[in-house]
Amino acid sequence: MARDSARVEAFSDAVIAIVLTVMAVELLQFGPDTPKDKGLAAALAHEWRSYLAYVITFAIVGQIWLTHHNMWRYVVRVDQMLLVFNLALMLFVAAIPFTANQLSDHLRGTDADQQLSAALYVGTVLGEALFFNLSWWWARRRNLLHPDLDPRLAKAVARRYRLGPLLYLIAFAVVFIDPILSLCAYLLLVGLYLIRGPGDLPSTART
Amino acid sequence: MARDSARVEAFSDAVIAIVLTVMAVELLQFGPDTPKDKGLAAALAHEWRSYLAYVITFAIVGQIWLTHHNMWRYVVRVDQMLLVFNLALMLFVAAIPFTANQLSDHLRGTDADQQLSAALYVGTVLGEALFFNLSWWWARRRNLLHPDLDPRLAKAVARRYRLGPLLYLIAFAVVFIDPILSLCAYLLLVGLYLIRGPGDLPSTART
Amino acid sequence: MARDSARVEAFSDAVIAIVLTVMAVELLQFGPDTPKDKGLAAALAHEWRSYLAYVITFAIVGQIWLTHHNMWRYVVRVDQMLLVFNLALMLFVAAIPFTANQLSDHLRGTDADQQLSAALYVGTVLGEALFFNLSWWWARRRNLLHPDLDPRLAKAVARRYRLGPLLYLIAFAVVFIDPILSLCAYLLLVGLYLIRGPGDLPSTART
Amino acid sequence: MARDSARVEAFSDAVIAIVLTVMAVELLQFGPDTPKDKGLAAALAHEWRSYLAYVITFAIVGQIWLTHHNMWRYVVRVDQMLLVFNLALMLFVAAIPFTANQLSDHLRGTDADQQLSAALYVGTVLGEALFFNLSWWWARRRNLLHPDLDPRLAKAVARRYRLGPLLYLIAFAVVFIDPILSLCAYLLLVGLYLIRGPGDLPSTART
Repeated sequence: MARDSARVEAFSDAVIAIVLTVMAVELLQFGPDTPKDKGLAAALAHEWRSYLAYVITFAIVGQIWLTHHNMWRYVVRVDQMLLVFNLALMLFVAAIPFTANQLSDHLRGTDADQQLSAALYVGTVLGEALFFNLSWWWARRRNLLHPDLDPRLAKAVARRYRLGPLLYLIAFAVVFIDPILSLCAYLLLVGLYLIRGPGDLPSTART
Repeated sequence: MARDSARVEAFSDAVIAIVLTVMAVELLQFGPDTPKDKGLAAALAHEWRSYLAYVITFAIVGQIWLTHHNMWRYVVRVDQMLLVFNLALMLFVAAIPFTANQLSDHLRGTDADQQLSAALYVGTVLGEALFFNLSWWWARRRNLLHPDLDPRLAKAVARRYRLGPLLYLIAFAVVFIDPILSLCAYLLLVGLYLIRGPGDLPSTART
Repeated sequence: MARDSARVEAFSDAVIAIVLTVMAVELLQFGPDTPKDKGLAAALAHEWRSYLAYVITFAIVGQIWLTHHNMWRYVVRVDQMLLVFNLALMLFVAAIPFTANQLSDHLRGTDADQQLSAALYVGTVLGEALFFNLSWWWARRRNLLHPDLDPRLAKAVARRYRLGPLLYLIAFAVVFIDPILSLCAYLLLVGLYLIRGPGDLPSTART
Repeated sequence: MARDSARVEAFSDAVIAIVLTVMAVELLQFGPDTPKDKGLAAALAHEWRSYLAYVITFAIVGQIWLTHHNMWRYVVRVDQMLLVFNLALMLFVAAIPFTANQLSDHLRGTDADQQLSAALYVGTVLGEALFFNLSWWWARRRNLLHPDLDPRLAKAVARRYRLGPLLYLIAFAVVFIDPILSLCAYLLLVGLYLIRGPGDLPSTART
């Protein structure tokens, strides 16, 4: 019977691709209070936060795809629990356009709205990082990984994955001190992961 | 020529992934009667039923994906009728966001609206369960399953599949007594299936 | 290098899956003139044409998927022109939700609107049938089909494909006499194709 | 472990398919200022620019899919940087419906709006062409291509890719002289690429 993980990858790819594209469609429409009689330049300038949110969220969801790609290339078998963990991961991924939307809408709102929307956003990525960890931990425990993968490498990846939620948790805590600072810290983390992904094993382990 | 069922899986994956994500986008937007001047917390609290509906429907559609994944890994050939059964299944899957939307809108409406929307919702999942059964029954009858699959196991799966619509039918009947009770019973069923899927054969049958 | 046609299938699957699901989301929303104070039953009854259009269009697009699936399983190589033909096919497939929408909106409109919307709809499926024919004709001419496929069978399929546009063209002509009759004739054709697809070769040719 | 590039293709296919279909759904809806009481023919005639934009953008995004298909069939391994380049490419692809929408809305607007919307549009395709070049350059440099691919051919493809952004850049410069002329020049380029794709190697290199 076919390689188990191929279909999980195809399904997750579709969810992530839709999230990326839907965001482009949703965020790039003009809001109801955009000045329409002052020309296109003024309208675009008024909406700058939406475009920033689009690029940032694209980076975040893109990084999730990279991590998913890097993790699942080592998974050769699946069981019911790993599939449920992956579905829970997709639940958080699919919610990102909503929380990103709230964040860009309330970035210049009241203090309470700023904090709540930033907390929602960081909470979504925290949940996503949590289920990445659970997936990898479960795949290792139940021997669902490729037999040629060095157990020490698998453990090193797990350690690096564990770092993610910890750092996100700190970024989450900072939300209640300064939401903007929290977001900057978070974006720095995403940028770091894009350059050196947590599941980006040394090329010798690949073949 | 290529393994027949691969493309059916890819197509069904795409439909299910879109349903999951579209639901996130549709349900998570604020309704027209959301209080916007009382801050984000009040707006989110006002919309709690939408978020509950999102999580519940994600669980249901996720469970459908799991069942589809578990069933189709044993299907190695397809014929015209099996493809038509799968398309009919997708017709019901694609209608779930609509019926879920109606349900969450009328959960606190009049008795008649409550009953009708709950009946629509349970009816959709009943139709979905029906075409799962038809697909499996047809695949067994026409020898479209993997030759290594033990016929007794295939029969055991069919028996477990048959249980689904029966239980859904009871949940459907309860709608006319108490819609909320009917939904709770239904969700219990979905939860049970998530832990132990109807097509989740013993690992010996997998290899 | 990988089997050429696999990616064309995956791409076409995604387009068709999105068309099916988007239609469910778009069509199933209540129109602006739906009576909202008379309860859910009245609202649903008022919208019956949308639901009919959803089921009909699902059948049509589903039949397109079946035909595409049946055709491309015999295509093992691709060239630039075949890809362009497939893209043109997708252009018509992606336009179906729009023309279906127009049709269901103007089914009880003025005679001119009825005729125009029916002509648009039948025109879209005519274009779709045309590019199916062109694809098969090109694949045969350039030897892109599976070498084990009997040329007489390939020719028989081409003959059956050719019948489609001819029948659609007649249905198209009838639009100007009676749009409803034209649609009924068209739906009869789709139903016939669903039971016995034009590319549904005898099982001996399949292996 | 599985062929690395298969999943990148599936993911990119999904993004491109969604962009194509979403455009059909978004663009084909009637704008708010469409005359609704003069019948369907008048409404359709009023919206002609949207339909033209749909067909043009379909051609452009379709050509991007063709180029992506032709390029990635030679990529057999991936690394983190190539994935990031591909994600950046998708960022520009996903933005095309937005810029196409702006363009068709402001084609008969003020001079400043015409120029800005044309600049946005050409800028998006310029960014897309840039990341195609970066991807191919990186894949060649890091030996990620199929070992059987003749290095001279790979170099010839790179040369042809390089031509794209150069020509787009000229089209971009012309925007500030005459936006309509710039678009015509751009469409001519797309048409040329559709007939003879930049990555469409001689058939001997394929096998």
